Amino acid sequence: MKQKVNRTDSKLKIIPLGGLEQIGLNMTAFEYEDSIIVVDCGLSFPADDMLGIDLVIPDTTYLENNIDKVKGFFITHGHEDHIGALPYVLRKINVPIYGTRLTMGIIENKLKEAELLQTTQRKVVGFGDVVREGAFRVEYIKTNHSIVDAAALAIHTPVGVVVHTGDFKVDYTPVFGDAIDLQRFAELGKEGVLALMCDSTNAERPGFTPSERTVGKTFDSLFQEHKNTRILVATFASNVDRVQQIINTAYKFGRKVAVEGRSMVNIIETAIALECISIPENTLVDLDQLKNYPDEQQVIITTGSQGESMAALSRMANNVHRKLTIGPGDTVIFSSNPIPGNEKQVTKIINELLLKGADVVFQDAHVSGHACQEEIKLIYSLVDPKYAIPVHGEYKHLKAQANIAHSLGIEKENIFLLSSGDVLELDANGAEVTGRVPVGTILVDGLGVGDVGNVVLRDRQHLAEDGIVIVVMSLERATGELVAGPDIVSRGFVYVRESDELMEEARTVVDTAVGACLDRGVTDWGKLKNATKDVLSDYIWKKTKRRPMILPIIMEV
Amino acid sequence: MKQKVNRTDSKLKIIPLGGLEQIGLNMTAFEYEDSIIVVDCGLSFPADDMLGIDLVIPDTTYLENNIDKVKGFFITHGHEDHIGALPYVLRKINVPIYGTRLTMGIIENKLKEAELLQTTQRKVVGFGDVVREGAFRVEYIKTNHSIVDAAALAIHTPVGVVVHTGDFKVDYTPVFGDAIDLQRFAELGKEGVLALMCDSTNAERPGFTPSERTVGKTFDSLFQEHKNTRILVATFASNVDRVQQIINTAYKFGRKVAVEGRSMVNIIETAIALECISIPENTLVDLDQLKNYPDEQQVIITTGSQGESMAALSRMANNVHRKLTIGPGDTVIFSSNPIPGNEKQVTKIINELLLKGADVVFQDAHVSGHACQEEIKLIYSLVDPKYAIPVHGEYKHLKAQANIAHSLGIEKENIFLLSSGDVLELDANGAEVTGRVPVGTILVDGLGVGDVGNVVLRDRQHLAEDGIVIVVMSLERATGELVAGPDIVSRGFVYVRESDELMEEARTVVDTAVGACLDRGVTDWGKLKNATKDVLSDYIWKKTKRRPMILPIIMEV
Repeated sequence: MKQKVNRTDSKLKIIPLGGLEQIGLNMTAFEYEDSIIVVDCGLSFPADDMLGIDLVIPDTTYLENNIDKVKGFFITHGHEDHIGALPYVLRKINVPIYGTRLTMGIIENKLKEAELLQTTQRKVVGFGDVVREGAFRVEYIKTNHSIVDAAALAIHTPVGVVVHTGDFKVDYTPVFGDAIDLQRFAELGKEGVLALMCDSTNAERPGFTPSERTVGKTFDSLFQEHKNTRILVATFASNVDRVQQIINTAYKFGRKVAVEGRSMVNIIETAIALECISIPENTLVDLDQLKNYPDEQQVIITTGSQGESMAALSRMANNVHRKLTIGPGDTVIFSSNPIPGNEKQVTKIINELLLKGADVVFQDAHVSGHACQEEIKLIYSLVDPKYAIPVHGEYKHLKAQANIAHSLGIEKENIFLLSSGDVLELDANGAEVTGRVPVGTILVDGLGVGDVGNVVLRDRQHLAEDGIVIVVMSLERATGELVAGPDIVSRGFVYVRESDELMEEARTVVDTAVGACLDRGVTDWGKLKNATKDVLSDYIWKKTKRRPMILPIIMEV
Repeated sequence: MKQKVNRTDSKLKIIPLGGLEQIGLNMTAFEYEDSIIVVDCGLSFPADDMLGIDLVIPDTTYLENNIDKVKGFFITHGHEDHIGALPYVLRKINVPIYGTRLTMGIIENKLKEAELLQTTQRKVVGFGDVVREGAFRVEYIKTNHSIVDAAALAIHTPVGVVVHTGDFKVDYTPVFGDAIDLQRFAELGKEGVLALMCDSTNAERPGFTPSERTVGKTFDSLFQEHKNTRILVATFASNVDRVQQIINTAYKFGRKVAVEGRSMVNIIETAIALECISIPENTLVDLDQLKNYPDEQQVIITTGSQGESMAALSRMANNVHRKLTIGPGDTVIFSSNPIPGNEKQVTKIINELLLKGADVVFQDAHVSGHACQEEIKLIYSLVDPKYAIPVHGEYKHLKAQANIAHSLGIEKENIFLLSSGDVLELDANGAEVTGRVPVGTILVDGLGVGDVGNVVLRDRQHLAEDGIVIVVMSLERATGELVAGPDIVSRGFVYVRESDELMEEARTVVDTAVGACLDRGVTDWGKLKNATKDVLSDYIWKKTKRRPMILPIIMEV
């Protein structure tokens, strides 16, 4: 044991750096004395009010301020919400990345695109392997999830073992590879586990999540039922097992398969290279070749199951796909559930597909990749932790897991629902939140990382709501006299030709107000602008009950 | 029979004037020779891409063009998506309104606000009553729905009877009033029905919708379970039966009830005045009085069950309600399901409430107001129509009902999935879509009705995405020389202080381009503006991968 008994900071610190406030930013720091390791490095997609934003990544100020301590990123699996921020974060925190085979394959695709592959240390870890970094030994444990090669981590620290499940489910009959290593969870539990950080996503759902294999059986019967039509299956790009099963069923029914959608093609190529998927010869063909076969021998696996407007399925449904159109005689199977918030856009696509005459199947062709209540209870019972720290989910999910943990006999004061930035200090004698570190979200818009903040977002919301009214005028430098304008230009406010009178009156109102200011000898631009804003926004509100952004611009000539 | 055999237009025309493209705009014209009656007059809430829009109402050009034929509005029930457009439409089409008691009470509240009460003819219709207008006799038939006094219509025409269910369910044990008048449906069917227009909302759901009374039992057990806390129940403002049941349970448990949220207070007052709700003495109190009772004797019924940001519940959850705050020791019951598209904002409120320490109940305290598959089959079997015209729902719902109708033996060519504007001409000998009339949606923004169209919306979307960059410059009238600017101002584009260099370079880029134009003798403002746009948008795309709106403004001095 490295533990120095007299040091005051010889407790383990667990610090969620993304998380709660913005689901998907999975990133947790584990700190002991002068060692920090980081589990996962996810990105998230913008909330509805983050107009124009492409991605959200976690603020890593705390890691940057402690850069000498940071030993490495330990990635649990290859989903965007666990790896997506790496290309941004690595530019500031260039430390080794650890992950299993497929996880690393997917990460490497990202690093290539970001031109970071050469400068990043990457280490592939096998299940059962233990990585030693600083004060920590990190052990990779096999789990099941909706992506191949997902892992839980047993983080051995000087004050005890923390088990972090990552995203997981219990699948006794997985499509690829082994079932979750329940024995190792049990062994760790037997030896004593300090804390369990367990996936909460499905903590509100009773029962067990069915095996991925059940979806294969559904495909068999759906293909049987739709023998005479072309079949399209929409699913998540990264669900290699799902693609495997679609291909298996296609092969059984003598159909050829093409994959459509850039992200899916990338991941399938990686999975093939790493032998995480096995494809019968002459089954997978190019989209262009597929046309040589009759409809009833075609299967297209596509992205866009969430109704994403730029994805392949949406382009097909809206007749803007370069190569594929949908019509009567097509069967479209959604092998997915809408992620909360996407329901409306998914429904929109379904309506479009039905209108085009396609048969749409939206039932039983999906299972979740997350543990339900009985699986969570199983893991708790095997691991038998002193402290419970529910992770992965919104507050209501963490709370639901807290209730489960409590029902299994863990005292309420030993259950921690952490907010991002909370510093939980713990050892065998106790655990408490002792402080906070700086955390936050960084918005990515185009090439800009962090250059869109609250002010810009607020302006975008304001512009989106009622548009903008711009007032320009020119003052003469020497005399301060108004020599041109005020002219009024608007965008996104009102259809102008029908409202010429409104704009003409607005001009008069501003002209009068500015004239009055100038007559009183007011030449301060700030005051002139404020007078313009006040009088114009009053006038517009009275006439339209709208509050466009009002932007006075003064030029000096 | 009025039918003149030799006239060419002696068929019935059914014309949906709202509907499909914008769910909620329920409005259907029935036309026979020189008579038109209109069933319902609903509004809809804006789609996600209708930025800044408050409401959407149907375009009534067709009715305006045929104003002399229009005999009246026949309203099925008092929900916004069936009555909400009346205050707008009546200004153009001032014809009598027919509706049942509570329906008319709710309409009258709206007309009062719009100052249209005095100028509008209103006629309250009882169940079983028949209204004669032009070529039509319209019979009101009792149904059940999530609002009291909902009706189906049997529209007797010279070519046969059309049954329009309105929104309905089959509730054998309703909370208020009678069960749906199945006998009358059967009688009409026995006599012969030309067409059935049946509610499709739940046509995808198997089985029967449970009785509203089942929710009362749930309240009883929830109140029993949460005996020691204050209880808040969030539900739809117009669900008078639900409020009745909450009050019944509260009374049983010796609690006082206050109602919070303007729309709910209005409807409950109307329901009390019309005796559609019966409240035990001393049970309903003002919110201010409620504070005189201990927590465990308080019930607050509130709006905001859909997570609407301005509704009472949301204001409580976010600590901006004037009178109420949420804390540990509160139980919040959601007596509602999220309407598709609202899932995310409902979840947000739930998380807020949990974070404040409240207990949140989100199960079993709601039933739908719409018929499921078995109820739809029941109505078809009783009415036994020649033609099926599914109504109320998205395309996928209409399609699901079409499948049900077909499974009951109606030929596919006798089932019509109408788009809004389709003219279905029918009589006992046949039915076909023979043409289209002008239809569309009119956007309401503040006081403006129809002054925000596609151009303005597209501008708002553009502004929302990447903001605006404004370039102003002054040219001298006589010489065409640039005497001030170009100056660049942006809003919603990028946080400026961090990007001064970007804006400075942008200014130089524009300056150079405009200078080159002027040197070449180009003084046409259109050309100068285009040159500015081109060069600046290229520059900004290269530097930021964003496409803000670029607005050049030239002043002449």
